[in-house]
Amino acid sequence: MSNFVIAKSRRVRSTPYTSRIEMQGVTSYTVYNHMLLPASFGTVEENYFHLKEHVQVWDVAGERQVEIKGKDAAELVQMITCRDLSKSKVGRCYYCPIIDDKGGLINDPVILKLAEDRWWISIADSDVKLFAKGIAIGKNFQVEIFEPDVNILAIQGPKSFKLMEEIFGKEISDMKFFGFDYFEFEGVKHLIARSGWSKQGGYEIYVEDRKSGLALYDKLFEVGKKYDVKPGCPNLIERLESGLLSYGNDIDIDDNPLECGFDKLVNTDSEVEFLGKEALKKIKSEGIKKKLMGVKIDTNAISVTKSISIFDENNNEIGELRSGGYSPHFKKVIGIAMLKKPYWETSQNIKISINNKIFNGKVCDLPFI
Amino acid sequence: MSNFVIAKSRRVRSTPYTSRIEMQGVTSYTVYNHMLLPASFGTVEENYFHLKEHVQVWDVAGERQVEIKGKDAAELVQMITCRDLSKSKVGRCYYCPIIDDKGGLINDPVILKLAEDRWWISIADSDVKLFAKGIAIGKNFQVEIFEPDVNILAIQGPKSFKLMEEIFGKEISDMKFFGFDYFEFEGVKHLIARSGWSKQGGYEIYVEDRKSGLALYDKLFEVGKKYDVKPGCPNLIERLESGLLSYGNDIDIDDNPLECGFDKLVNTDSEVEFLGKEALKKIKSEGIKKKLMGVKIDTNAISVTKSISIFDENNNEIGELRSGGYSPHFKKVIGIAMLKKPYWETSQNIKISINNKIFNGKVCDLPFI
Repeated sequence: MSNFVIAKSRRVRSTPYTSRIEMQGVTSYTVYNHMLLPASFGTVEENYFHLKEHVQVWDVAGERQVEIKGKDAAELVQMITCRDLSKSKVGRCYYCPIIDDKGGLINDPVILKLAEDRWWISIADSDVKLFAKGIAIGKNFQVEIFEPDVNILAIQGPKSFKLMEEIFGKEISDMKFFGFDYFEFEGVKHLIARSGWSKQGGYEIYVEDRKSGLALYDKLFEVGKKYDVKPGCPNLIERLESGLLSYGNDIDIDDNPLECGFDKLVNTDSEVEFLGKEALKKIKSEGIKKKLMGVKIDTNAISVTKSISIFDENNNEIGELRSGGYSPHFKKVIGIAMLKKPYWETSQNIKISINNKIFNGKVCDLPFI
Repeated sequence: MSNFVIAKSRRVRSTPYTSRIEMQGVTSYTVYNHMLLPASFGTVEENYFHLKEHVQVWDVAGERQVEIKGKDAAELVQMITCRDLSKSKVGRCYYCPIIDDKGGLINDPVILKLAEDRWWISIADSDVKLFAKGIAIGKNFQVEIFEPDVNILAIQGPKSFKLMEEIFGKEISDMKFFGFDYFEFEGVKHLIARSGWSKQGGYEIYVEDRKSGLALYDKLFEVGKKYDVKPGCPNLIERLESGLLSYGNDIDIDDNPLECGFDKLVNTDSEVEFLGKEALKKIKSEGIKKKLMGVKIDTNAISVTKSISIFDENNNEIGELRSGGYSPHFKKVIGIAMLKKPYWETSQNIKISINNKIFNGKVCDLPFI
């Protein structure tokens, strides 16, 4: 496959860290929420092995925040997710499918409860701000909805705990997964969550003070030398092995959360009201007709840039592959596929055409590991 | 400036024409509405001279459609734009600022009235679908809102008229600017508008039938040989000279339409109701505090990838440059800038730093030509 250059402009926003990562050797970008998101530093496989052993600092400013605050904030946030947030606590992160009135997936963010009347929706790649604004206008809610100037640095990898302890002190290691709190760096408080888009452990620093963020960026590399710190970014192979879904790649508005394995987050039996509750109840009772599953394919390379049809042994089209990559762990290609009923059983054999050659594979559960 | 590769994935959607333009030598991409949009074939300056003399076929599928249909479609469409559409006609295109309840710009699409109860919003780069959905849900409107599988081919340049006549017949030349109608190609009807994001004349073909669209694509190049047809894309220099604004580059949600020169499209004196009407009335009566203007800068190269501060002769910061490029016509850099009151007069001298060197310039009216 040929390589093409990304054309930069103000519309495809740079981040506060863009000049840093360009000096450090970023090689490719994608665009995420109208912003540059690094996609590799060298090869994805090199990045993968490093991430699983050491620690990386990621410029994930493209993971924008939608701030919702005001009297009706909690009601609006609950209205757009099928997850019951009635027992949610300040200082905690919640992974929440955002859905429309038909149950279609709008986004799959982590939602941070900053206060009873103040929330951050840490979004995947779609303009949740506009959706929330539309509903607030239509319902006459008393809320403010805007994108604050928050630019996340993710610290990921097994050595992230030691590195962060050196900078922020012992108490940062006591924070539980999906908890967040404020930690001081050179006189500036930063909201830090124990979270991140890998399963190698780590933190996300929600940088609000750009100047302090850049000083912190440099400090992480200075202190991190002994931990072999490197700049990095969300890694296709690692996130596939870990079964982390990507909105726009694996799931989109034509899918509902029950098809995507979010069953535990579809709280139709709760008392809270949300968009699509009736639609999802109906889907639950009738049963889903397609399902997101893992697949393993007996080959050693793939580049998924659009859906690729999946066939059974009799050449019936039974679904589509949506992401995929070579897994050093499984020594074959693994991927995420949407499969039609009844072809999503883990005993199902599949066939797929890659560069005009047919390969065999098998359906499997998510996550892979 | 270094070049970086664009990382492809299903999320950054390919278009039906992507494989065609990659065979034809596309060199860079941007991402527009979560889709690949070609940004150059060789140099932007070569493309500019060709566009102004011959004819180009553009893959602008990234200009997605938001279809709004149903009983309340017209009411919803009117609600989200400050332009009075009460006298709008089926078969016509309308350039409409989309605004929120504060008057902030959400998008600046062309809206096509397909029927009284069926509209296409041909969007710039933001998820208008989610905004419209939110309002429809909040207001309980009876509408369907979705993104149809429409993939626009733009035919632009002075020879586009001859080329299109050869394929679609004489009547296509009779169509007025911003009119649209249906024209047949090999048994398939295509909606074609006399429009496009250049001032060199031409058409946009709203391809709904992918197979026919690809056949048409090939036909345009076959018949177009004698007109020196080439693949192309929206051209930075041409669109700047022509004063065509780019949402996300020149204007965004923190600007209102009165600041962006859309005064004639802000119909606060009409009887129609729309979002932000009261807010815009207030802004009108109080007067705007910043204004979008042209600038000419005495140098021969610039690359604008983020806002660049503009100063007056006394080194007061008076605004920011949002797009810019070298204009062969003016033999200097031209750009689009947001300037603070009272510095937007055309007599205003400006100073700007490009690669650590200070250049002089002047404010001017839009469009440049």
